Amino acid sequence: MKVIIVGGVAGGASCAARLRRLDEKAEILMVERGPYVSYANCGLPYHVGGVIPEESSLLVATEQMFRAVFGVEVRTGCEAVSISPAKKTVDLKNLATGKVTTESYDKLVLSPGAAPIRPPLPGIDLPGIFSVRTVPDARHIREWLERGTEGKTGMDSYTGFQVVTKPKRAVVVGGGFIGLEMVENFAHLGLEVTLVEKLNQVMPPLDPEMARLVEQYLVKHGVHLELNDGVAGFRQAADGSLDVLTESGKAHPADVVILAIGVRPETALAKAAGLEIGKRGGIRVDEHMRTSDPHILAVGDAVEVKDVVTGQWTLIPLAGPANRQGRIAADVIAGRDSRYRGTQGTSICKIFEGEIGQTGASEKLLTMVGDKDFEKVYIYQNSHAGYYPGAKMMAIKVLFRKSDGRLLGAQLLSEDGVAKRVDAFAMAIQMRATVYDLEEAELCYAPPFGSAKDPVNFAGMVAGNLLRGDMPIVHWDGIGQGLLLDVRNPPELAVESVPGAVNIPLPQLRARLGELPRDKEILVICRSAVRAYYATRILIQNGFTARNISGGMLARSHRAEG
Amino acid sequence: MKVIIVGGVAGGASCAARLRRLDEKAEILMVERGPYVSYANCGLPYHVGGVIPEESSLLVATEQMFRAVFGVEVRTGCEAVSISPAKKTVDLKNLATGKVTTESYDKLVLSPGAAPIRPPLPGIDLPGIFSVRTVPDARHIREWLERGTEGKTGMDSYTGFQVVTKPKRAVVVGGGFIGLEMVENFAHLGLEVTLVEKLNQVMPPLDPEMARLVEQYLVKHGVHLELNDGVAGFRQAADGSLDVLTESGKAHPADVVILAIGVRPETALAKAAGLEIGKRGGIRVDEHMRTSDPHILAVGDAVEVKDVVTGQWTLIPLAGPANRQGRIAADVIAGRDSRYRGTQGTSICKIFEGEIGQTGASEKLLTMVGDKDFEKVYIYQNSHAGYYPGAKMMAIKVLFRKSDGRLLGAQLLSEDGVAKRVDAFAMAIQMRATVYDLEEAELCYAPPFGSAKDPVNFAGMVAGNLLRGDMPIVHWDGIGQGLLLDVRNPPELAVESVPGAVNIPLPQLRARLGELPRDKEILVICRSAVRAYYATRILIQNGFTARNISGGMLARSHRAEG
Repeated sequence: MKVIIVGGVAGGASCAARLRRLDEKAEILMVERGPYVSYANCGLPYHVGGVIPEESSLLVATEQMFRAVFGVEVRTGCEAVSISPAKKTVDLKNLATGKVTTESYDKLVLSPGAAPIRPPLPGIDLPGIFSVRTVPDARHIREWLERGTEGKTGMDSYTGFQVVTKPKRAVVVGGGFIGLEMVENFAHLGLEVTLVEKLNQVMPPLDPEMARLVEQYLVKHGVHLELNDGVAGFRQAADGSLDVLTESGKAHPADVVILAIGVRPETALAKAAGLEIGKRGGIRVDEHMRTSDPHILAVGDAVEVKDVVTGQWTLIPLAGPANRQGRIAADVIAGRDSRYRGTQGTSICKIFEGEIGQTGASEKLLTMVGDKDFEKVYIYQNSHAGYYPGAKMMAIKVLFRKSDGRLLGAQLLSEDGVAKRVDAFAMAIQMRATVYDLEEAELCYAPPFGSAKDPVNFAGMVAGNLLRGDMPIVHWDGIGQGLLLDVRNPPELAVESVPGAVNIPLPQLRARLGELPRDKEILVICRSAVRAYYATRILIQNGFTARNISGGMLARSHRAEG
Repeated sequence: MKVIIVGGVAGGASCAARLRRLDEKAEILMVERGPYVSYANCGLPYHVGGVIPEESSLLVATEQMFRAVFGVEVRTGCEAVSISPAKKTVDLKNLATGKVTTESYDKLVLSPGAAPIRPPLPGIDLPGIFSVRTVPDARHIREWLERGTEGKTGMDSYTGFQVVTKPKRAVVVGGGFIGLEMVENFAHLGLEVTLVEKLNQVMPPLDPEMARLVEQYLVKHGVHLELNDGVAGFRQAADGSLDVLTESGKAHPADVVILAIGVRPETALAKAAGLEIGKRGGIRVDEHMRTSDPHILAVGDAVEVKDVVTGQWTLIPLAGPANRQGRIAADVIAGRDSRYRGTQGTSICKIFEGEIGQTGASEKLLTMVGDKDFEKVYIYQNSHAGYYPGAKMMAIKVLFRKSDGRLLGAQLLSEDGVAKRVDAFAMAIQMRATVYDLEEAELCYAPPFGSAKDPVNFAGMVAGNLLRGDMPIVHWDGIGQGLLLDVRNPPELAVESVPGAVNIPLPQLRARLGELPRDKEILVICRSAVRAYYATRILIQNGFTARNISGGMLARSHRAEG
């Protein structure tokens, strides 16, 4: 059996290594357009930032290792230029010599990945504008930062010496994972950073009100944030530096520009071969990672996957799923019944000290697919016991099914402990857990790591209280008529209060029930909705109609529409 | 309805607060023998160590708050001295005045907790010997450390001044959670620390070979570790300091001694009331937290719980379960059908920079209950991407059912990222996941937090490979006849090698198969069992009989029998 694998990173490399373990005799040829196989593309932003100083650190498994250990023939600098599914051949082009050879296969695995989107904007090919996809990309950015804008000199403000001016101002276009990581790494290098994003939010997988927290955090850390403004083009200034021109007419000066406006599945080869492409633009595969041609499989960022929550086809370019898909493709080629279960979009992103995590469906996504059987809650809890040093506020949004409590998604932000909770939520979604399961989850606790009631338990309890009818809630954007009752203490109101709200501090509530109307719904406010929950319970049991304003003042501070 | 709650920490306090939310009209009386309710006993070691400087930080919810917010009558310094189940009354003793009053109840909740074991050893009441259970305990230790051994003076080695000598040598008796946390905190204070443990391992919930890693870590951090040696008594030296005398005849000098040899459920009150006590010595309750008397419920460290993995009654004193049980007891009193699902023993413990985590059953426990349908694997993986700074080796032992792959337990040690994985394993066990589910788990990954194949995935893959028959393994303690084949590179063998093992580096294996016997089982060794797995696959597919030595040299370095 001869297997050709096109693309030697993540999915392709996983597939090659796994296939060799399953089949010692198969002839395996892995071709990679770039100079390296199995490199750590997730580490590229950190290499640019110098956090990972050595380029060699990024080379996880070398070409030599694939040959020696896995008996896999590797050709780098080699591009698959066309496939003949009928003949079961693929044309491979040696990018150094230009020579094209034809190789036959029994099974072909496509793992071409996704390419950074690079729209044909004026000036997009000017020097100093980079994408961050490959090791050479990172090298070029590092060289650019080191060399500076050629011929540019200036005066060092401290020594008064004439020096070659290094890039000082970075503009990052696009506020997704790569964009945010590049923002952090440029800031780490001491550059002034502007982030330009066409959408009304950064971090598109998050719901906008959760993205608000990220945006506030970026601004707090000195990042110039430009939302709702797409890039219109680039212009070279007289001094050699760049201007990033936006649709609204702004010009952001830049010594270095990163394009991180998303990726597009590399489907040209698959399309030309007549393979089915899905509506989202990725290669369509079945659960065995087989394309519409039974002898061609595809894995990684180039394929569409089923969203495990919504069941819809989607594009979710992530390293973990790509690796698992490569492994499954190898299993299938080796005659095993392995199946890919779909992707739930579990992710985490570090931005300065902050951690942004997510798993499962967002409210945006549920709304887009027309799902109305869901509810959401907002939780604000300490990342670990408040009395132990270093506890940070953790904001969590949890989405769950109204009809049966099934967990649908979670979004988390904190400067501590996000990964612990994302993985608990992720495993819960995978295993089809309900919010009632979250209530009873036995997660690890010691003061440096958590609380006896972990934020995950807490999220389950709040959602459970809601579903059991113990805690009617209303969201800030759904407040209509009703008396606003703020149960915080007066010093808290002095900092920020809601216009028109009546204040009765929680400890006085039972004694002052007579002051409240029985013919009007009471909407209860506190800081994080915990005391408001207690108050709501008191009110309801005393015959009032009351709802808790979900997430309290903290949720108000990052509403989608500020 | 009148409800009396005996014990105002964790379970009792949770029960009181939840009950008020469910029943605004109930009369709730919570009595607590000590001076504080709802205090953070998990924080006590850190308060002793000064990491949590203020005692007030430990008082999570005050007596006043319970009164004002929850309308709960609280009596501190008040002990329940007897119960009359027939009359539904409890006698309460005011510890300040000695006065006993009788209170009637409709429902009684017992949350007395567990008391530190304090065996009647000679000298146990000498000054300077402490337990760590209550806020006053911590205060007394702090005062003792501050004051030093009375009348003792010495010469400051730097200034030459006569100074009052503060305690310099601590002996901690017992190497469980509290013992280890006290070791860390004393070391943090600059004391020389000796840890004396009667058992052959520290951290009893761990299997001994995993405890070896903790022990090595303690020794590396300068802790004097004395295993297999129980305390026989205590003696006061002429200078006022203590000697801790052991069964083996040793005397460990100490200026301060901590007794942390475990806890015993406080069942005197329950026993005297004729309530059923389980074989493990805890109060027996049903899944609704009801004792053998339908009007008396019990929660927290004093009750026996069902182990979710083995189904056996056991004692697992943990804060999270206590809190959930208190909540469930409140639900049940309020007429709801809440059920406690059992305890899985999820825990985490910080020791210096190390993190020790566990969830589910240990091999010891499975063996004790006669379960033979299980297998284990050892995993050694980076805590996050190796190319990102700060990655640490993570050692994981995973136990799973041979017959169906169900995950039974996990034990983890690392200096980074343990909590993330414990929670993933904990949720997996709760949801009855298999190792095949772990293989496919989509956990969060970015270089600072994990790897594309998370250690949890990796554990699932190794276990899955074993169960699918792809990777026969043998453990170090099961090696009989067979050729030992070491596939590491020669420089690695120079550091440490296994006597009698043949060395063929993995990249040379295919070319040198002729050197290996076909009539003998080949047992393959490498550092962490990854390369050995590759080698085993090559050998098996080439017609050899081969097994991978689980965990490789790393597992060998911490075998139960060193």
